[in-house]
Amino acid sequence: MIDHRRLRVALLGAGSVGAQVANLLLTQASELAERAGADLELAGIAVRDVDAPRDIDLPRDLLTTDAESLIVGADIVIELMGGIEPARTHILAALNSGADVVTGNKALLATHGAEIFDAADQLGASVSYEAAVAAAIPIIRPLKDSLAGDRIRRIFGIVNGSTNFILDKMDREGLSAAEAQRIATELGYLEADPTLDLEGYDAAQKAAILASLAFHTHVSLDDVHREGIENITADMIDGARRAGFTIKLLAVCERLDEDGAEAISVRVYPALISRDHPLASVHGGNNAVFVEAQAAGDLMFYGAGAGGLQTASAVLGDVVSAARRHIAGGVGVGESPRQSLPTASIGRIHTRYQVTLEVADEPGVLARIAGIVSEGGVSVATVEQSPSSDAQGRAHIVIGTHRAREQALSDTVARLAASDVVERVVSVLRVEGE
Amino acid sequence: MIDHRRLRVALLGAGSVGAQVANLLLTQASELAERAGADLELAGIAVRDVDAPRDIDLPRDLLTTDAESLIVGADIVIELMGGIEPARTHILAALNSGADVVTGNKALLATHGAEIFDAADQLGASVSYEAAVAAAIPIIRPLKDSLAGDRIRRIFGIVNGSTNFILDKMDREGLSAAEAQRIATELGYLEADPTLDLEGYDAAQKAAILASLAFHTHVSLDDVHREGIENITADMIDGARRAGFTIKLLAVCERLDEDGAEAISVRVYPALISRDHPLASVHGGNNAVFVEAQAAGDLMFYGAGAGGLQTASAVLGDVVSAARRHIAGGVGVGESPRQSLPTASIGRIHTRYQVTLEVADEPGVLARIAGIVSEGGVSVATVEQSPSSDAQGRAHIVIGTHRAREQALSDTVARLAASDVVERVVSVLRVEGE
Repeated sequence: MIDHRRLRVALLGAGSVGAQVANLLLTQASELAERAGADLELAGIAVRDVDAPRDIDLPRDLLTTDAESLIVGADIVIELMGGIEPARTHILAALNSGADVVTGNKALLATHGAEIFDAADQLGASVSYEAAVAAAIPIIRPLKDSLAGDRIRRIFGIVNGSTNFILDKMDREGLSAAEAQRIATELGYLEADPTLDLEGYDAAQKAAILASLAFHTHVSLDDVHREGIENITADMIDGARRAGFTIKLLAVCERLDEDGAEAISVRVYPALISRDHPLASVHGGNNAVFVEAQAAGDLMFYGAGAGGLQTASAVLGDVVSAARRHIAGGVGVGESPRQSLPTASIGRIHTRYQVTLEVADEPGVLARIAGIVSEGGVSVATVEQSPSSDAQGRAHIVIGTHRAREQALSDTVARLAASDVVERVVSVLRVEGE
Repeated sequence: MIDHRRLRVALLGAGSVGAQVANLLLTQASELAERAGADLELAGIAVRDVDAPRDIDLPRDLLTTDAESLIVGADIVIELMGGIEPARTHILAALNSGADVVTGNKALLATHGAEIFDAADQLGASVSYEAAVAAAIPIIRPLKDSLAGDRIRRIFGIVNGSTNFILDKMDREGLSAAEAQRIATELGYLEADPTLDLEGYDAAQKAAILASLAFHTHVSLDDVHREGIENITADMIDGARRAGFTIKLLAVCERLDEDGAEAISVRVYPALISRDHPLASVHGGNNAVFVEAQAAGDLMFYGAGAGGLQTASAVLGDVVSAARRHIAGGVGVGESPRQSLPTASIGRIHTRYQVTLEVADEPGVLARIAGIVSEGGVSVATVEQSPSSDAQGRAHIVIGTHRAREQALSDTVARLAASDVVERVVSVLRVEGE
């Protein structure tokens, strides 16, 4: 059944994902050829240093530092270098030379996606990027193709495995943030510079990519409201547990329906999730993404959120699909046309909140606080005062609100902070998934 | 951005899914045109009786009883009539006239899939069928494309919403099978003839389609080992609960690795699932499918398993994708080449079992039974004897086995049934998901 065509595949990058991709292309060549309808010849692997140590042995004669030459004449270019440059230049060169591109580069797509997709459209080539979000979990293709005839209202989920590992360790083993981070680093869940994960940049890049696809618009990293987990303490997780919640770093992409004007909100922040919610059961480095669509209803996609081999599966799925298209003679079916939906500021979202205050443990404090909150137009659902005050005579009050506008809530918190009955605002957390 | 091309869409069938598809094509025309890159003109809707009452009002001038004429000149034919004929003839005619086909017809694909895919391949047309399995949950496209570069080991899950609704009602509300079925019928979960659902035919059709895709082979309905839920009683569900399980109707597709010879097993049966397993939390009419792949690891897909509107979402996703391909000038990218993997008999599978026996409550019975089981080469994991015997002096013994070969287990059960200490084999259930 195999058409004896041969497609030249150029691989840029041999890190944890790239090395697995190279290995699978070499060791499962006949199976991949059968799937693709053509031999997938690994023409070369561009690396920064051919002598660098690697987890997987790769044939020395395939390694080169000359990415430009490797790209010339390739039918499919796989970009797994990461970062903006030279990845961007190489991808544009590949598209210009008529190659289809497969990439897992979320940082690049979240900042220069529009430029790259436009170039691909004009050149009739394709850019596939299933590996850019949630490793092997098929989420890009379902959004792009399977749900192409539906209207997506909301996407929310856990898209960063490292922070989920840390929060899960803290929740399940009672570890401090520092201890959990140390273990995550030891096990390879965190890079030497953990900022990208901890401060939510990685999740925000993925949120930008998902929102762009789901809402057929251009969302870049700058449009994403971003809060990381750097301020989440063991105390906060403990308090969440006692209230029936766990804390997860969530990416939320949603259509806002306010005064009839279309807008979207794309945001990443740690939020409270009910322990009954399926997202609360997403442990370790796993990812899970919920999609709420008008006709399809609620869908969930779950699996490993990271890992060289897992991500390589997503890359190879894209490579085989690109090869089939190449063989069939079809030009790349690009992204659907993008509108330019305005991105709403975080003040415009509506959700529930949990506000923890440190107060003087005196009569009348609770009533004063409830008064300030309701004056602000925020409706209180639950109030709980910690039974015992500390040596300084201070108590904690935890206020759970009904759905409120973020701007109203933050104005209210500011007034609470300024009032003479509140010593300190301990934490303000959003409650999602309800 | 819209290319002012116009694609003619012919719809065959206006049942619960077809009517929703027609309605969405008409009411969301401009949005769909933007996604597809062309206007999708609903040229007509073929029905058996133009005067039949329908849930959704459809323009009278679009209805016709002449499917053949409607197909001529159509760019995309959507077949939602169900059943084998005339659906098969219409699909082949559509492919012959150069149209792409979108269908949700699981019965047809599970029996005549090979003929239809071969025809599509030879004609350079495409047949899409996301709606055939698990309604709006994207599972066909992830298997066909996203995991095309991976090796799938096993698929298992809940793919029939009606039986899941019934088992869930029995489990959560303690209803009898008859009561649960009555409610399912009232709520529209069961057809007038419930045999297709209750006896596992519907799930078996879907299992055949999933196994064909996952293992790149041809599996037809006849290759699927099929047991329905017609013998599941409230007592069995009650016993399962006490042992920490629930009962689900599962579809299992797996590669067998026995003596180095490649074979697959495709089966549908009610099985015990630990209450800790995510499948135990799939309630009501929902579906969930686990995919275990060599590189990707474990993936789960979850969502509504039925419903006219939900299934219409899957149909329209396929229609928009087919339209994009049409515009791009690419021929249909067909199924990957199929091997002919042998289907193993049910006797060759390995799993855990729970066997419930009614025995005379006499000294030495437990030892006798344990002896018979271990002679058969089946390893016992747990044995539990009900503390009290009934008026006739009979007790129940529940044996949980380690993983065993089904043939060894069924031989053992036959010997138990024939022995003088066993009054009756109450139930034999497989334990999956462990």
